[in-house]
Amino acid sequence: MALVGFGTVGREVAKILCERGDGMLRLTHICNRNVERKKQAWVPSDVVWTEDFHAILSSNAEIVVELVGGLTPAEDWVRSALKAGKSVVTANKQLIARDGPELLELANANGCQLEFGASVAGGVPVLPALRTGLCGDRLHGISGILNGTCNYILSRIESARIPFSEALEEAQARGYAEADASEDLDGGDARAKLAILALAGLQVRIAPEDIRARSIRHVEAVDFDYAAQLGCTIRQISRTDLVRETLYAEVGPGLVPASSPFGRVQRNLNLVLTSGQYGGDMAFLGAGAGGDPTAVAVVSDLIFVAEGLSVGKRTPRPLRLASPKVSCDFETPWYLRMVVKDQPGIIAALAAILSEHGLNIDAVLQKPGFDKNALPFVITLEPCRDSQLQPALHEMLVLPFALRPCLSLPMLR
Amino acid sequence: MALVGFGTVGREVAKILCERGDGMLRLTHICNRNVERKKQAWVPSDVVWTEDFHAILSSNAEIVVELVGGLTPAEDWVRSALKAGKSVVTANKQLIARDGPELLELANANGCQLEFGASVAGGVPVLPALRTGLCGDRLHGISGILNGTCNYILSRIESARIPFSEALEEAQARGYAEADASEDLDGGDARAKLAILALAGLQVRIAPEDIRARSIRHVEAVDFDYAAQLGCTIRQISRTDLVRETLYAEVGPGLVPASSPFGRVQRNLNLVLTSGQYGGDMAFLGAGAGGDPTAVAVVSDLIFVAEGLSVGKRTPRPLRLASPKVSCDFETPWYLRMVVKDQPGIIAALAAILSEHGLNIDAVLQKPGFDKNALPFVITLEPCRDSQLQPALHEMLVLPFALRPCLSLPMLR
Repeated sequence: MALVGFGTVGREVAKILCERGDGMLRLTHICNRNVERKKQAWVPSDVVWTEDFHAILSSNAEIVVELVGGLTPAEDWVRSALKAGKSVVTANKQLIARDGPELLELANANGCQLEFGASVAGGVPVLPALRTGLCGDRLHGISGILNGTCNYILSRIESARIPFSEALEEAQARGYAEADASEDLDGGDARAKLAILALAGLQVRIAPEDIRARSIRHVEAVDFDYAAQLGCTIRQISRTDLVRETLYAEVGPGLVPASSPFGRVQRNLNLVLTSGQYGGDMAFLGAGAGGDPTAVAVVSDLIFVAEGLSVGKRTPRPLRLASPKVSCDFETPWYLRMVVKDQPGIIAALAAILSEHGLNIDAVLQKPGFDKNALPFVITLEPCRDSQLQPALHEMLVLPFALRPCLSLPMLR
Repeated sequence: MALVGFGTVGREVAKILCERGDGMLRLTHICNRNVERKKQAWVPSDVVWTEDFHAILSSNAEIVVELVGGLTPAEDWVRSALKAGKSVVTANKQLIARDGPELLELANANGCQLEFGASVAGGVPVLPALRTGLCGDRLHGISGILNGTCNYILSRIESARIPFSEALEEAQARGYAEADASEDLDGGDARAKLAILALAGLQVRIAPEDIRARSIRHVEAVDFDYAAQLGCTIRQISRTDLVRETLYAEVGPGLVPASSPFGRVQRNLNLVLTSGQYGGDMAFLGAGAGGDPTAVAVVSDLIFVAEGLSVGKRTPRPLRLASPKVSCDFETPWYLRMVVKDQPGIIAALAAILSEHGLNIDAVLQKPGFDKNALPFVITLEPCRDSQLQPALHEMLVLPFALRPCLSLPMLR
């Protein structure tokens, strides 16, 4: 087998393979830029180091492990490996989220395998579990805390009541967030993972861009105070629910009960919940990212593929993927947090707008001690659809006392 | 494929298969006693009903699902199916715990598969995860809440502070415990499951009887009061740790932090934690028992085996199982609860015994308000080995003020 991409995960994969030293998985090639600078003394001397992917293609390696990441050139490389009849193991979230269904078909057509267990939630074996232990169920829902950066930041704001910007800087200093963390903060990373989970678990073909993503940037320390009053905390939740022909899906911050599995996930851990027609709910908790857990996922996939190869070419298993309509129109109770310049009549004005749109107020919360010129307060709403709420939020934007757009968070169970 | 045993789980398996209606898994035979009374209108008319297992053996069914349970005649049937080259899917905990390694070798020798994902923790796909997503790691520890009956009883005593006997009756009334619940209460069930997890996850061959099992019968409501003072609750924990050539393993009640994953498992749920050299810790939570979750595990195994069959006979994969020494000599802090007839000098007498055995007292707890003639109080000890503690407990048995044997519980993290 050939390892393409010798960064943190690649090195750890090579290390585990060398330490295992079993006959089934023999590392034959390592492909990377600047191989001279990458060479390691502990890699067996018969491993071929190369900078040229074509050397891998023309080799007799039966499995290619793609750990380059990104779309270019990873996409071309994965396609050409599959076309050459080589099975592929990849941790490439972006590629699988976009082209997973097509690449699975390509693998099928060429009698080889494509596995991507490391592309979501690194060390949490949820994709393998969907493929094996849960494949006998009919799943209808998957939700999770899929982005360790967001979870780190939100749980730091929660525990230290620091501003968002400070929590972000801390996450960057500790290596939990990149310099440009937009993909994490604004939900791009999590929705790609959610698309992959939906593909593997719900057998649906959806584009990540069709999943609405809300940013966590607008969550402030005061929101944790109000959430706590409601027995809740705030997490970035990715969720999807298949109801007949519609796939409800969304990524963004939401209130969750502090005592729920979601509410208890601290730091950069990942949690995935699955709901099945027969088996009910299952939870998977573990390290989402990091070189070592991700490498375990890659090696596990490798063993799975190698065992498959040991019994000969696979008969193509037709993919039966549905292509449901994607909607973010979940029905939930809502948490609305406004920051206003205090004056008489605010509640009346808001209540009038909400009532016009058929929305029922559940509670009004106002913590004492804030500056009256920038007063944060909260209204919670009884369950309604997102599509009912949005027009009301739109009207609230232009209220003269509103200093900022209202932050609306779904309240999840 | 043939279904042998048409009880709760068997019926549900047949139902899921009929509802799936895919070509890969075709139910051809159902074998049970009194088939006439068992027949269901929704089972396709071309399914053969039989009371004779030999009809299955001589049929062309490629997979036999054994859901009879127990050792006789299940053991013979599984062996003869494997010898006839038929793959076997079973939920038979007792059989796999005793003969798993040998049956796996028999399956290998006959080029067929043996899967038992439903034998532990029903709907929690931990065995499939050990086979797939975690197989790239090197696990050294597995622990879990594996017995739903014990967890139901202990969490009921915890929440309602009722006596053990009342919680047991309640569990029996609700169908969570059998009339003779000894296998559950005294740890026999959990240690069989632990032996299977150790086989699949740590690649060791151990006899369930070599795992010490302590009963939960001696845990009382007052122990939850004292545990709460220590920030803990009490659960039946099964745990095993492979340290070089020794497999530490034990099943029994222990104190766990109330805020830990174990402490939060309520009612009859199951939780399994795995610890790996590379991937760190992983948690799996879900419904441990029940017809539907168990049936999902069986059908998932069936799909796995059928996919294997679709690519031809398996090349035998040699089992490389270690046979470590089994020990229960864990090192932990301890919780000792005595019931005494109050009199001066009790603490002094106990402290003297503990000190003679080199045991350090961490805390002495005594809740007010108890009858002085039967006073429960608690001593916690700093970490020591079980083997250091036992002689001290033995000496404490004959103290004149001790009304009952001291209850000793390990304090786990």
